[in-house]
Amino acid sequence: MSLLVVGSVAIDTLESPHGKAPDVLGGAATYFAVAASFFTPVQLVAVVGEDFPKHEIEWLRSRKIDLAGLEIQKGKSLRWTGRYHEDMNVRDTLSFEANVFESFSPDLPAAYRDTPFVFLANIAPKLQARVLDQVKSPKLVAADTMNFYIEGARADLDALLRRVPLLMINDEEARMISGERNMVLAARKILGMGPKSVMIKRGEYGVIYFSGDTIFSVPAYPLEQVFDPTGAGDTFAGGVMGYLASCGAVTPANLRKAIVYGSVVASFTVEQFSLERLRTLTREEIEARYRQFVSLTSFDVP
Amino acid sequence: MSLLVVGSVAIDTLESPHGKAPDVLGGAATYFAVAASFFTPVQLVAVVGEDFPKHEIEWLRSRKIDLAGLEIQKGKSLRWTGRYHEDMNVRDTLSFEANVFESFSPDLPAAYRDTPFVFLANIAPKLQARVLDQVKSPKLVAADTMNFYIEGARADLDALLRRVPLLMINDEEARMISGERNMVLAARKILGMGPKSVMIKRGEYGVIYFSGDTIFSVPAYPLEQVFDPTGAGDTFAGGVMGYLASCGAVTPANLRKAIVYGSVVASFTVEQFSLERLRTLTREEIEARYRQFVSLTSFDVP
Repeated sequence: MSLLVVGSVAIDTLESPHGKAPDVLGGAATYFAVAASFFTPVQLVAVVGEDFPKHEIEWLRSRKIDLAGLEIQKGKSLRWTGRYHEDMNVRDTLSFEANVFESFSPDLPAAYRDTPFVFLANIAPKLQARVLDQVKSPKLVAADTMNFYIEGARADLDALLRRVPLLMINDEEARMISGERNMVLAARKILGMGPKSVMIKRGEYGVIYFSGDTIFSVPAYPLEQVFDPTGAGDTFAGGVMGYLASCGAVTPANLRKAIVYGSVVASFTVEQFSLERLRTLTREEIEARYRQFVSLTSFDVP
Repeated sequence: MSLLVVGSVAIDTLESPHGKAPDVLGGAATYFAVAASFFTPVQLVAVVGEDFPKHEIEWLRSRKIDLAGLEIQKGKSLRWTGRYHEDMNVRDTLSFEANVFESFSPDLPAAYRDTPFVFLANIAPKLQARVLDQVKSPKLVAADTMNFYIEGARADLDALLRRVPLLMINDEEARMISGERNMVLAARKILGMGPKSVMIKRGEYGVIYFSGDTIFSVPAYPLEQVFDPTGAGDTFAGGVMGYLASCGAVTPANLRKAIVYGSVVASFTVEQFSLERLRTLTREEIEARYRQFVSLTSFDVP
């Protein structure tokens, strides 16, 4: 089944102890769409400026990502410059220019309104809600958010949470939304705000998922080097939603497998700058690493 | 098979946001021995002072912990006072009095020298080596250490590492020993220093185990409240070594199960102050939580 994502498509400049990558492909929706496209057809709703590289648009199209919802507007694309420290968990935003993204107001092409799987990447909760207003009875809606909206648009976010069955956030965001340090308490509070399930991304410590009385936890794939953590969370979400859409049915067993697939794709993403690793990644490599996750985590029943 | 532990038996005073527990049972070897005693007979080598509560000695004995190696010396027992913060990962040592422990020089009773499983809890590497000098061809030796010895007795520690097949430390200690931030690189460096395997304890994020090309990772049991983290690492080690000793054979499959049993016992320890939760804990509760670990971590092969 197909999967709709709305969010940012951007041009990033990245600095890290490993070097510098100027003017590379970025944006949450880009990472998400490419990750999901390993599993299922993707529809991308976003806006870029006239400066957006044509060859990147061609590349996205070559991955069977439907770009009917990608608007090319007069002006410049969203640009983000970030710097990572020796401790890759710490990053500074050196500059952020919204450009054409400032007036982004997503309108879904008619053909997208029946899409059964929907992901609202990290944009203003009001815009996320606007997308929800346009889709007809989707099978699953998931959303991400960030500190900026948790602090600055809380009422909008609260209204959105009541409409989002699956929230996918990181541990700091879970603490901010809930006011709880402990992840079990944080998750329980968030589940009381609307979502039926919450997936909490913990970087090098993996993912923990809460739904009703169920808790499922997967470690991150142990990497010798995290080259560039940009997009790890978005490709995780892309792997999760892409796999679920490919299954069609959202069962507890599929959800667990989806979380592992998301973790697998995210582990590849961080191996190189930007989306470089995803350009060469194959489904066979994904399956091989999935099997490594089995060996990483499995133990016998006594 | 039986299991020997050498280390500290102490009287702790604990302060935390949950309250205060003055003059309670503590010490790495105590936590270890009680945790291991759920699985196998334990021999405890330690020293206490005349102030050590008789009823605690009786309690340890009632758990089938062999106390032939527990010396009662003139003077006061080791005393530690610690305070935990709201963030339970942070603790201050308010006072530390070595007392009779200052001159601790472990001599194994003759009956202990053939014990097949040996755990060297966190004491000076020179004393750990002294114990190793006294045991005859054990099946498995594991050791713990801490920042104090990594910084202050590095040559002794390096000499010990060459003789210890299994090192069980926390993530900060792994970073200090190796000089590497990344856990995969840290583990690889440590495996180059002598140990065949290393288990790295990561608190609320669980445990990651490295041995040759094998990596095994288990999350921590998700608890709503960590009441008192004292002894979590020592009871983890006690569960691991106790279960392995009960199996007799150290196979890869037994090692994985042992790590889960260690995680289970540690998750109970932190539910109450000191060893309180372990006093009432039953093997049935351990087995039930082991099954919860299965449900927490299992996912299907694609």
